Amino acid sequence: MSDLHLSHRARIMPASPIRKLVPLGDEAKRRGVHVYHLNIGQPDIETPPEFFDAVRNYKEKVIAYGNSQGIKLFLESLAGYYSTLGIDITPADVLVTTGGSEAITFAMMAVAEPGDEILCFEPFYTNYNGFAIMGGVTLVPIETKPEDGYHLPSREEIERFITPRTRGIIVCNPNNPTGTVLRDDEIDMIADIALSRNLYVLADEVYREFVYEGTARSFMQVPGLEQHVILMDSLSKRYSLCGGRMGCLVSRNRALMDVFLRFGQARLCTATLEQIGSAALVDAGSKYFEPMITEYRMRRDATYEALMRIPGVVCRKPSGAFYIMAKLPVDDVERFAAWMLTDFSHEGETTMVAPGPGFYGTAGRGITEARLAYVLNADSCSRAVDILARGIERYTDTHRKDV
Amino acid sequence: MSDLHLSHRARIMPASPIRKLVPLGDEAKRRGVHVYHLNIGQPDIETPPEFFDAVRNYKEKVIAYGNSQGIKLFLESLAGYYSTLGIDITPADVLVTTGGSEAITFAMMAVAEPGDEILCFEPFYTNYNGFAIMGGVTLVPIETKPEDGYHLPSREEIERFITPRTRGIIVCNPNNPTGTVLRDDEIDMIADIALSRNLYVLADEVYREFVYEGTARSFMQVPGLEQHVILMDSLSKRYSLCGGRMGCLVSRNRALMDVFLRFGQARLCTATLEQIGSAALVDAGSKYFEPMITEYRMRRDATYEALMRIPGVVCRKPSGAFYIMAKLPVDDVERFAAWMLTDFSHEGETTMVAPGPGFYGTAGRGITEARLAYVLNADSCSRAVDILARGIERYTDTHRKDV
Repeated sequence: MSDLHLSHRARIMPASPIRKLVPLGDEAKRRGVHVYHLNIGQPDIETPPEFFDAVRNYKEKVIAYGNSQGIKLFLESLAGYYSTLGIDITPADVLVTTGGSEAITFAMMAVAEPGDEILCFEPFYTNYNGFAIMGGVTLVPIETKPEDGYHLPSREEIERFITPRTRGIIVCNPNNPTGTVLRDDEIDMIADIALSRNLYVLADEVYREFVYEGTARSFMQVPGLEQHVILMDSLSKRYSLCGGRMGCLVSRNRALMDVFLRFGQARLCTATLEQIGSAALVDAGSKYFEPMITEYRMRRDATYEALMRIPGVVCRKPSGAFYIMAKLPVDDVERFAAWMLTDFSHEGETTMVAPGPGFYGTAGRGITEARLAYVLNADSCSRAVDILARGIERYTDTHRKDV
Repeated sequence: MSDLHLSHRARIMPASPIRKLVPLGDEAKRRGVHVYHLNIGQPDIETPPEFFDAVRNYKEKVIAYGNSQGIKLFLESLAGYYSTLGIDITPADVLVTTGGSEAITFAMMAVAEPGDEILCFEPFYTNYNGFAIMGGVTLVPIETKPEDGYHLPSREEIERFITPRTRGIIVCNPNNPTGTVLRDDEIDMIADIALSRNLYVLADEVYREFVYEGTARSFMQVPGLEQHVILMDSLSKRYSLCGGRMGCLVSRNRALMDVFLRFGQARLCTATLEQIGSAALVDAGSKYFEPMITEYRMRRDATYEALMRIPGVVCRKPSGAFYIMAKLPVDDVERFAAWMLTDFSHEGETTMVAPGPGFYGTAGRGITEARLAYVLNADSCSRAVDILARGIERYTDTHRKDV
């Protein structure tokens, strides 16, 4: 059987680095240890009741195929949502997707051939890798650093990576995993590069509502960039709807929207009930965002302050999303994170973080960094990081004795 | 803007041939003409209440990420369903997918590189094309003919198409668009070819319950073929759940399942509520199938008998799915099908069919064929085909005068 062929993409597709430690966490729980999960971006916030109400009140007797573009009700509510943000588009500029995942996949496949390149800034959302591999697209990572708060490098530094095969730049703002929100001058710089080098901007702005100082400017709002921007969006985080798999693509570029619609027709449609429920959420407006943001701001502050109490941690206070990426004073975060689950507990508790290397495209980078998702209440976040601090101390001690 | 790059796959991705006539149908309806939709496989059967009940009774407050493989409840109910069919597998052999669409996409991407070949029998399910284009896979069509009831050609004929780049054979049984159910000797022949040439069998068996004489044998039941078969399944037709987007991949090949899980992790998970509802459907068992099959058998008979009353139609009575593919006595079914919507009506009614060429990979084939989906009650099917007969008569007359 060994000579049954597996494709190259099948062989190189990585397992989820975030989920890699899960068995060790499960094992710790079996031993009775309480595990603080700062490792995964699953919010504990309740999905707003409008979603469940709309789903429960669905009256059709048949769950039939919907329109490939999305159901009218949902497309219109999305267009309305973007207009409240000052992004003036029509329902014709939107295609509903199965989560942000399908949006990113379609965008990459539309602009790049197998072998073509898309620039991205590392650390980056780890699944960009998977989507690129499926489409045969080469992600070209450009480093950002904890010392700079993971802000972008200079224009010259970025342009060094452009080749004749570069088709676009993927930008996640506010950023997963770093929490960084781009400044206006950074947005303008990327827009200028895209315009002058004729590249697409693949704008992943799913965390736009999660901003704790100021606001996140959308690439959709940059004048002159209309034909170049593809907005890739998801309702998962905004409405705590991760298991709803609802997202969308937005572009004013007619040729691109025509491609997306044809890609969409191949897979027929997205789930009807989730669209019905999601339309109700979007129509309910932004009333959920303010208390949610206040809550997350407290969590961020608690997490950040606790991190700053750990000697040797390098990290700048992030302004957005619900992640903090930090350099930890350990030799190898992957080993340390595993050790926290297998060998350490403090008063019956331990903390699980996502090791840095999973968010880097370049081997050897991120080995002393970790992503912390502050998806627990502020007290728990604070406690979890204090336990992390004790872990670092003990690990460093143990390790010192080892050598 | 014209020099913004669109990828080759974006440019060649076809629009849905089935949905191409939709604007003409809509226009006919605006003129007050009643349109019998035999063009699209959307059943009118109600989705069983177990689905809605389970969704309405969902008690969790957060629609959270599920397991990438699928939720346990649904995986176990699927494994139970297959065991009732004599397909002995465990939940570990199953990956839940977003519809049959994602199942087919993952299967193609796992076994074939860009440029690799997968054999298929034409006419075939039109979206195979789209999935192959997205993955850069070359579909190699092998002709089947209305005169043979679209049964498979000889082994020699099939093996002629195998090259060093051939990775698998995709077989749809019972077949969409032809309704043909493969005989045991045909299943054995494909299995032999796969074993001796070391090819995968990508088995699309979504219509397995829709069989009106005998049963459809699954490739999963062929001894010795365990490592070679990938079952691609969907709940859309079986439970009238087309807008639920629930499907799965099943394989006993561990290496393949590991690939599918990694592909699945990249897109995180499938929709939670649909899985909850679908698990309840599968648990409810086969009680819906018998009355449904009785109903469809009547529809098939009515449609087939009405077709046989049209002089010059070539078609053998199909045993499965809910489609009949037939050769019509017109010069060009695409033109004829459009004309039925724009220029013809009988007593205020007309009939919409899916033209043959959309189901062929080879240009020039299928131009006198059409697919009829018998998704209306028997009387309506009969009436729709009688109107088609009158249309053919008038079209032939008009056309004769034209030349």
